[in-house]
Amino acid sequence: MATMKAAIFVEKNRIVLDEKPIPDIGPADALVRLTTTTICGTDIHILRGEYPVAKGLTIGHEPVGIIEKLGAQVQGFSEGQRVIAGAITPSGHSNACLCGCSSQDGPGTLHGFKAIGGWKFGNTIDGCQAEYVRVPDAMANLSLIPDNLSDEQVLMCPDIMSTGFSGAERGDVKIGDTVAVFALGPIGLCAVAGARLKGAGTIIGVDTVNTRMTVARQLGATHVIDFTQGNVVEQIMAITYGRGVDVAIEALGTQSTFESALRVLRPGGTLSSLGVYSSDLRIPLDAFAAGLGDYNIVSTLCPGGKERMRRLMEVIASGRIDLAPLVTHRFKLDDIEAAYELFGHQRDGVMKVAITP
Amino acid sequence: MATMKAAIFVEKNRIVLDEKPIPDIGPADALVRLTTTTICGTDIHILRGEYPVAKGLTIGHEPVGIIEKLGAQVQGFSEGQRVIAGAITPSGHSNACLCGCSSQDGPGTLHGFKAIGGWKFGNTIDGCQAEYVRVPDAMANLSLIPDNLSDEQVLMCPDIMSTGFSGAERGDVKIGDTVAVFALGPIGLCAVAGARLKGAGTIIGVDTVNTRMTVARQLGATHVIDFTQGNVVEQIMAITYGRGVDVAIEALGTQSTFESALRVLRPGGTLSSLGVYSSDLRIPLDAFAAGLGDYNIVSTLCPGGKERMRRLMEVIASGRIDLAPLVTHRFKLDDIEAAYELFGHQRDGVMKVAITP
Amino acid sequence: MATMKAAIFVEKNRIVLDEKPIPDIGPADALVRLTTTTICGTDIHILRGEYPVAKGLTIGHEPVGIIEKLGAQVQGFSEGQRVIAGAITPSGHSNACLCGCSSQDGPGTLHGFKAIGGWKFGNTIDGCQAEYVRVPDAMANLSLIPDNLSDEQVLMCPDIMSTGFSGAERGDVKIGDTVAVFALGPIGLCAVAGARLKGAGTIIGVDTVNTRMTVARQLGATHVIDFTQGNVVEQIMAITYGRGVDVAIEALGTQSTFESALRVLRPGGTLSSLGVYSSDLRIPLDAFAAGLGDYNIVSTLCPGGKERMRRLMEVIASGRIDLAPLVTHRFKLDDIEAAYELFGHQRDGVMKVAITP
Amino acid sequence: MATMKAAIFVEKNRIVLDEKPIPDIGPADALVRLTTTTICGTDIHILRGEYPVAKGLTIGHEPVGIIEKLGAQVQGFSEGQRVIAGAITPSGHSNACLCGCSSQDGPGTLHGFKAIGGWKFGNTIDGCQAEYVRVPDAMANLSLIPDNLSDEQVLMCPDIMSTGFSGAERGDVKIGDTVAVFALGPIGLCAVAGARLKGAGTIIGVDTVNTRMTVARQLGATHVIDFTQGNVVEQIMAITYGRGVDVAIEALGTQSTFESALRVLRPGGTLSSLGVYSSDLRIPLDAFAAGLGDYNIVSTLCPGGKERMRRLMEVIASGRIDLAPLVTHRFKLDDIEAAYELFGHQRDGVMKVAITP
Repeated sequence: MATMKAAIFVEKNRIVLDEKPIPDIGPADALVRLTTTTICGTDIHILRGEYPVAKGLTIGHEPVGIIEKLGAQVQGFSEGQRVIAGAITPSGHSNACLCGCSSQDGPGTLHGFKAIGGWKFGNTIDGCQAEYVRVPDAMANLSLIPDNLSDEQVLMCPDIMSTGFSGAERGDVKIGDTVAVFALGPIGLCAVAGARLKGAGTIIGVDTVNTRMTVARQLGATHVIDFTQGNVVEQIMAITYGRGVDVAIEALGTQSTFESALRVLRPGGTLSSLGVYSSDLRIPLDAFAAGLGDYNIVSTLCPGGKERMRRLMEVIASGRIDLAPLVTHRFKLDDIEAAYELFGHQRDGVMKVAITP
Repeated sequence: MATMKAAIFVEKNRIVLDEKPIPDIGPADALVRLTTTTICGTDIHILRGEYPVAKGLTIGHEPVGIIEKLGAQVQGFSEGQRVIAGAITPSGHSNACLCGCSSQDGPGTLHGFKAIGGWKFGNTIDGCQAEYVRVPDAMANLSLIPDNLSDEQVLMCPDIMSTGFSGAERGDVKIGDTVAVFALGPIGLCAVAGARLKGAGTIIGVDTVNTRMTVARQLGATHVIDFTQGNVVEQIMAITYGRGVDVAIEALGTQSTFESALRVLRPGGTLSSLGVYSSDLRIPLDAFAAGLGDYNIVSTLCPGGKERMRRLMEVIASGRIDLAPLVTHRFKLDDIEAAYELFGHQRDGVMKVAITP
Repeated sequence: MATMKAAIFVEKNRIVLDEKPIPDIGPADALVRLTTTTICGTDIHILRGEYPVAKGLTIGHEPVGIIEKLGAQVQGFSEGQRVIAGAITPSGHSNACLCGCSSQDGPGTLHGFKAIGGWKFGNTIDGCQAEYVRVPDAMANLSLIPDNLSDEQVLMCPDIMSTGFSGAERGDVKIGDTVAVFALGPIGLCAVAGARLKGAGTIIGVDTVNTRMTVARQLGATHVIDFTQGNVVEQIMAITYGRGVDVAIEALGTQSTFESALRVLRPGGTLSSLGVYSSDLRIPLDAFAAGLGDYNIVSTLCPGGKERMRRLMEVIASGRIDLAPLVTHRFKLDDIEAAYELFGHQRDGVMKVAITP
Repeated sequence: MATMKAAIFVEKNRIVLDEKPIPDIGPADALVRLTTTTICGTDIHILRGEYPVAKGLTIGHEPVGIIEKLGAQVQGFSEGQRVIAGAITPSGHSNACLCGCSSQDGPGTLHGFKAIGGWKFGNTIDGCQAEYVRVPDAMANLSLIPDNLSDEQVLMCPDIMSTGFSGAERGDVKIGDTVAVFALGPIGLCAVAGARLKGAGTIIGVDTVNTRMTVARQLGATHVIDFTQGNVVEQIMAITYGRGVDVAIEALGTQSTFESALRVLRPGGTLSSLGVYSSDLRIPLDAFAAGLGDYNIVSTLCPGGKERMRRLMEVIASGRIDLAPLVTHRFKLDDIEAAYELFGHQRDGVMKVAITP
């Protein structure tokens, strides 16, 4: 049986590169030979045991590669094509998918709705920090890479670009809106770019790391606030002349950022939450106007599926945005444990790493 | 100077009927002679000092009456016409109004956004538990009562019908949705009616008072749950075969109802909050799927303005709904203190009272 | 090879009952044994050669039946279950499906968008006026019938209920809207019901056949206009006090109904078109306010897929609506030619026929 | 009585500069002293008698100026402030305004809906090609110009920027959409900018004038097609690999552009019409998929009101877009007849003229 190298979750604080069988595929699946992938903040949560996955699971959910083999039922694609798949791989045929909520796809309940059910790679099935990955429901999930785009140019599409943009989309950013983005990691930076892409006027980024704040300006932030240099809420209210923001995007997953995001909203505004939280959240009575403020609080899991990926690559191909600068470090798959070491500790100004098998 | 009788907030736990001058009106205002009004749960919060208003203010925000006098600038109406005005009286010309958020109208800030700013009657200006009331921005707020509708038939339009329906509207109830409504007071009952009006299939009402549960069934609830008879979340999950509800409407304003509403949502569902809260809210981590459930939490202040009122009366006139049964007791304005006594203690199965000056 | 009876398009003006092989199924398909089906107005267009299909094709797109056999890849269903499938059978995995436009699904073009591509039964593949039908993409399209609903109660779900309701949904009917429905055939009647279900106040039906006008009133029309008794536009403007309607639903497919629907719209209103047209349409300059009226004209193909079907059956199960009265005549499959004869000539007050193999 | 200079419609083909009294203002109005204005394509329609206005009316609907005087009821502004007002001046208090359709504001009918009713300047009341203009409903319509923006930088906000952007907004352009814009006059160019601002990927501009095509590329077009160099529809289908566009924006007002816009739509796509038509339109049966294509056709009148203006200026202030290059020629008000001569004949590559009193 042919084997491959794969980054495997062994136990808390141990993800190691090991040999595994190359995946078998079913009739609706594809086997993709990976050419580039990356490590996500969520993988660090997995590494630390904060998000539970099965021991022995291959980690990773951001695949760029080449179709190695197609299941008997898969039409419209051919072997050898360059493709990506989203971090979230909806089936297309669940009730959740069919009512427009494909990230919450999943077979777990009678009617096909299951929270986070659409996230399969490196969560409920083997992921893509490996030489090969099985892509389920291939017809819904394989998306051809335009010839003129490199692997690194599309590497952000499967997760952080889709997630970050969705922060602006679910916040329903409109032309001329004022938007604040709390935390400028890769997701927050993509949220800045997404807010810009949707027509926001004033875009306020909040962080304290200089390199991130600089990139935020490059991607569209008109103002950047260092939260260590004074009260964030007061600073934003001053920038907005006391009006508050139309949309506040939370991109970290803490009480502090969530609460600040709520406090800077204008009445009728929207808090668009992207962060993965690790404890209960509190909504202060005054910040919520006792329930009478016409507020909206929305959370979003990364949208996936081939049409989403096609659209994101279309934006890149049109030259509207370039996220390649987020790739600050490159590793061979053989050195992925070193990559985890660097990325997990956020050393050396790392934003995203490119891993090449 | 001509005087009138009016229910006035004197101090905590004291609202009394007293004599006051009949209001002067400005060029954009109307003076309305009240023929029927009512007491709202919010007025009880005011009575108890839980919601602060100025001493001496006339209470009440649900006016039905006759135009007594029009300001010099008011066109399109004439004296003697039967009218209602919404509890919320948007100006029409604030930035909030002009971007579709008219309940959050208000002059308080530079750009015209202020939480709850659209609620003026019995909050920031004299209200309508009186013989006369000044209606500000009359052209935006007076709405003619169709001849074939009685005062009591339209008495719910200014607040509870508009608020309750907005719970279903802001929850974006769709044809075939499953909806749960937590607490079946007047607002919750109108939310049931609103969910039905927007095409929900299964509608689950939650309360423990028999009369309310009975009225809920009359207004469209397909299931009614007594929260004292077992775990509410489990009961709703059983009714929905483990799927959860598409929209959960909170109509009380407590942690318990808010949290249960969140827990019964399907992934991607919407918690539509109508209650007035009196303390911070907690969002449990699991109920929020750690931020990855594509949830929506929206709060709403009663929509007002003459177009809203016209539409609500249109629904009543078309025979789609009859809320008159909610009026369980009738009082003269002279006896309003007794009405507060009854309503404040929820005696004698009271739902809504009609007050006639 | 086992055979079955099926209604086959032979040539213009000839649909005959004949013997055909029972369909083979692929791994993603289901074979359904039909228990009830019906004839649609579109089938009459096919019969008359106005809508082209392949000779030898089995006609019919409204299946109610029992799962006879499941493809190897189909999960979540079992043989013997009672099911319906929509007239439109989206794959779930095309780009069209994945961006929320599943009726326009189809393999015909590079990116998976093709007009009417989602309509397969009795159009591009064999339909269901037969003893058995192959349901493609079964996981996306089979929908379980609740035990307490009869075949006839759900017989309208696959097409006319879904189509008629979509007229109100795509018109975005809101609480208190005024709606006009032009032509009260089965689709128009379902549009009336849909407008009512979405909260319209005034609903004006337009036709000239008494039985249809009577059923329209039963399903929610507050006014019914006989277009032979005076100018339709003038009558509707009179009913609406010169204001016009918020939403006009066209349910026939002629210049006359289309144009009248446009002329009765208030500025900013929506013409929701359901009819199948057979010639070019003209938009009169004045009716279109020279392009400055903020009008919306939307057309819709019947929404399908199992989630849509589940929701429609949910509405029926909740007792909100009963369309069974639309079934005015019943035939055995053996007598389907007689059924075509009756339905095609609209004899004997026929609305819908039930065909039982 | 103080007089001023104003460009007046005398009769077909004659707009002349004449003396008129400086306007009186009512309590809700403002008098604005103009500092810059411009001529719109619509004014040319008026000049040619194609759009009827009263003889003696002052033309012009794009005001930039300084508050000279405020009506007694106007709050929140002070004399001497630099302001713009939109071409459309909604009252804020009509039913149309209160249901979100403020461009169709107007007192003309019982319920306050009237096509084009919100367009008053240079249409139903005196316009702003003059030294002074009366702004009705000043509180809803005056919008302060940020200090750092020049007159010419905001000169496009009142009409062409608002109109052009609305083409993209009403077309609901989404991230990654493919958009075609038919005709690249000032409105079409702003539609290109609007499509870009809302996140379109591929943007295809259609025209034949080189300078316009060049500016279109600067404002965001990824492709430009010369309609004289081959079949437009075929060219666009080739660029989109046979898929068609998600949104087609019509910015001229002819059968040819309208029909081409419809023909390049993907199934489910939207034709967003901005042009002012001068004859009936024809919808070809095949282009409309016989009514089964899930198409949307929307028309839009320029959105106005102070919040809209604030947002457009916010976009300019944030540096997202610079429309000043559209101003190709400058004239004194005294020379406005020469400006009409130049602009009306589209001489000398004129795009927009700036007129300074």
